[in-house]
Amino acid sequence: MSSTKDNEPVERPRIVIIGGGFGGLATARALANDLVDVTLIDRRNYHLFQPLLYQVATGELSPANIASPLRAIVRRQRNCTILLAEVQGVDVEAREVQLADGERVVFDALIVAAGASHSYFGHEEWAQHAPGLKTVEDATTIRARLLAAFERAERTASAELCRELLTFVIVGAGPTGIELAGAISEVAHYALRQDFRHIDPTDATIFVVEAGPRALSAFPEDFDPVIRSALDRLEVTLLPKTRVTDITAEGVRVECEGESRWLGSRTVLWAAGVQASPLGRELAEACGCDVDRAGRVIVEADLTVSNHPEIFVIGDLASVTVGDHRLPGLAPVAMQQGQFVAQVLRARIQGDSPRERFEYRDRGNLAVIGRYSAVAVIGSRRWSGFLAWLVWIFIHLMEITQFRNRLLVLVQWGWTFFTRDRSARLITNSRVSSERSVSEPEPSTAKSG
Amino acid sequence: MSSTKDNEPVERPRIVIIGGGFGGLATARALANDLVDVTLIDRRNYHLFQPLLYQVATGELSPANIASPLRAIVRRQRNCTILLAEVQGVDVEAREVQLADGERVVFDALIVAAGASHSYFGHEEWAQHAPGLKTVEDATTIRARLLAAFERAERTASAELCRELLTFVIVGAGPTGIELAGAISEVAHYALRQDFRHIDPTDATIFVVEAGPRALSAFPEDFDPVIRSALDRLEVTLLPKTRVTDITAEGVRVECEGESRWLGSRTVLWAAGVQASPLGRELAEACGCDVDRAGRVIVEADLTVSNHPEIFVIGDLASVTVGDHRLPGLAPVAMQQGQFVAQVLRARIQGDSPRERFEYRDRGNLAVIGRYSAVAVIGSRRWSGFLAWLVWIFIHLMEITQFRNRLLVLVQWGWTFFTRDRSARLITNSRVSSERSVSEPEPSTAKSG
Repeated sequence: MSSTKDNEPVERPRIVIIGGGFGGLATARALANDLVDVTLIDRRNYHLFQPLLYQVATGELSPANIASPLRAIVRRQRNCTILLAEVQGVDVEAREVQLADGERVVFDALIVAAGASHSYFGHEEWAQHAPGLKTVEDATTIRARLLAAFERAERTASAELCRELLTFVIVGAGPTGIELAGAISEVAHYALRQDFRHIDPTDATIFVVEAGPRALSAFPEDFDPVIRSALDRLEVTLLPKTRVTDITAEGVRVECEGESRWLGSRTVLWAAGVQASPLGRELAEACGCDVDRAGRVIVEADLTVSNHPEIFVIGDLASVTVGDHRLPGLAPVAMQQGQFVAQVLRARIQGDSPRERFEYRDRGNLAVIGRYSAVAVIGSRRWSGFLAWLVWIFIHLMEITQFRNRLLVLVQWGWTFFTRDRSARLITNSRVSSERSVSEPEPSTAKSG
Repeated sequence: MSSTKDNEPVERPRIVIIGGGFGGLATARALANDLVDVTLIDRRNYHLFQPLLYQVATGELSPANIASPLRAIVRRQRNCTILLAEVQGVDVEAREVQLADGERVVFDALIVAAGASHSYFGHEEWAQHAPGLKTVEDATTIRARLLAAFERAERTASAELCRELLTFVIVGAGPTGIELAGAISEVAHYALRQDFRHIDPTDATIFVVEAGPRALSAFPEDFDPVIRSALDRLEVTLLPKTRVTDITAEGVRVECEGESRWLGSRTVLWAAGVQASPLGRELAEACGCDVDRAGRVIVEADLTVSNHPEIFVIGDLASVTVGDHRLPGLAPVAMQQGQFVAQVLRARIQGDSPRERFEYRDRGNLAVIGRYSAVAVIGSRRWSGFLAWLVWIFIHLMEITQFRNRLLVLVQWGWTFFTRDRSARLITNSRVSSERSVSEPEPSTAKSG
């Protein structure tokens, strides 16, 4: 059946949302009580709580714990239809979204919240050796590679190969990179500690390569000593002011202040660049507006595209500059933008004059550094250490969409807290039949890359 | 490093176990306090609790809830080494297990517990259209197909295609087939009930095709009325005395008492035949013993292979006949066999005369038919309905290996009981980009097929 609902009265505006992430979902939910027809298009059947994806990648949580079916979320919102489909493009003049299967969805207003994926800064060939962390498949791929590295180390007779297998390099010292590094350290030092007979997993070496001078550069410099001591305790080595110049199956070549260095490693993870969905660039071309270097659409103050007040771009796909800095690609930004767009649409429908400018209310910023430690800036307050970690736990538990998932995550965190064990340690999607097959890229990487 | 441990005193017997399922793991654990070196070889890094796999396939549980890392299970058993590897063959004369990567593992005693996979009775071409349920990848493949069928039905304009998409055919009315049928009925009638806007999931039609005259034929005939009324309540149609003659991407051709019938269906699941691991046939040829029709090794009364008292075959790979019926391929059989083999080995090492005959203590048999209903034969007692269902829940919770998993499963069962919702409803490993891509076999099927 057609989702355009031609048989319904035309006065009910058709709002089409592309993307069921934080931004798109917030828009849809904010329109729950309005006399509109909302169509939410996503190629996945679930909303993913990305901030905890690194815990899936490191075997603490299961994918379903952080992924809620979109249909279940909007089940009681009768004005919202979910369309599981791949978007091919937008016909701006005809006001139609084109789907990959040929169907066209007509809109009166369009919200594009298609998000971002990894950017390898023009080195797409690195993707196969250094998977990033954006999707469930990315997370299970990283989980399989991480665990397979220890398995291969246990079986190899070569001391050099063993050292390379127990060396983990993470590119990028933003929140994702630091969270991954901390979790891998916990895996090596606690979860796997007594599991092997020939190797000692605590011999693992973990590097975080960062082009800038500091880890977690979104946080004030006052935190540097706390971050440094937390990384020391985790035995994570930060390499600041260091650029990646090559990545192969055997390791990473880096350059620091003119000096080149080879880091032999069989597990390299990418937590550096993001690149906006290609839909952004296409849309910008069609509308005659600009994109920034990462492909984000530079939108107007009310989040619309220039000359097209019916098309909004929000979330990681939008480039919004306040003063001299760009709003970061964070869930709270996307959610507030979604709520703002819903308000604008509601005002237009009711004939009121809509708000003209999106303003981000920065409620704070949090990053976890291994177990028991985090840094937090909330309003004018700054926390670090165990207290910040408790704040982080509380906020993330509250934000997970379904009550059941909240309970399951709590049980698993509680278990990990008391036993330091992790049980979601599955190597799936690949059988570890030989060394060769383990080092080959997983099929899911190829797909999501 | 070599797992043969040449540097240890030779008098410590080297026990090699192939397969970390119920049989292999029971053997390894029963040898925990003996002066032996145990090497457990599996190509997976986890033990899978297969009896609950159908709940992963139908979105109630996550894979990690029913899969425990093998290394974590034997962590404190210092005489046991886990080898994550694919077995290529057994050199019976040299007493060596050959691994796919070229390594050889020497044994003094070998326990082969490599299990079984699906048998399509010579019609391997059916595998792509009718996945079976043996592995985690099978379960996530079935889950994706099941959910994608509803998604496609929601979007199609053709009433006929919609009907085919909402028709589910399960081949085989044994415990797995009946459990799957019941769970799919629950998904259609409760979990998805309000999730769609264009289709009514409760319109789903579920057929179970069974070649024999009865469903759950391992249970006494007295249960037939109970089983029938439970299936009626679930709106599952049992087609007894019906053979499958063809399976395509569009449906199943069946024959009942000479009459042919076409069941148009886009989701066909295979729960009919099992086929022993090819390792059984190779081993039997090398040792000069026989296999049965399903490729199971016909073993001696003490579970050894003829003329080779150092080689045991147990679990689904072994054919053990007591009186005139063969022991079924059930977890309790495999576990008791593993414990028996450990006793035999212990007696031999200590110079005692080992038990000469494995005897299965049948503690009972259980099968679940949808929610709130089950049939159970335990000793001389027979239960059915809600009470049997509670017994089933209790026994399965107790048997899941890790305490944490027990808690997670309990939370999720409790949630499903009270809300009838299922949240592990993820379509992963494939993006539903077009109708064509959904109907293509998933990569994981091709692998495990």
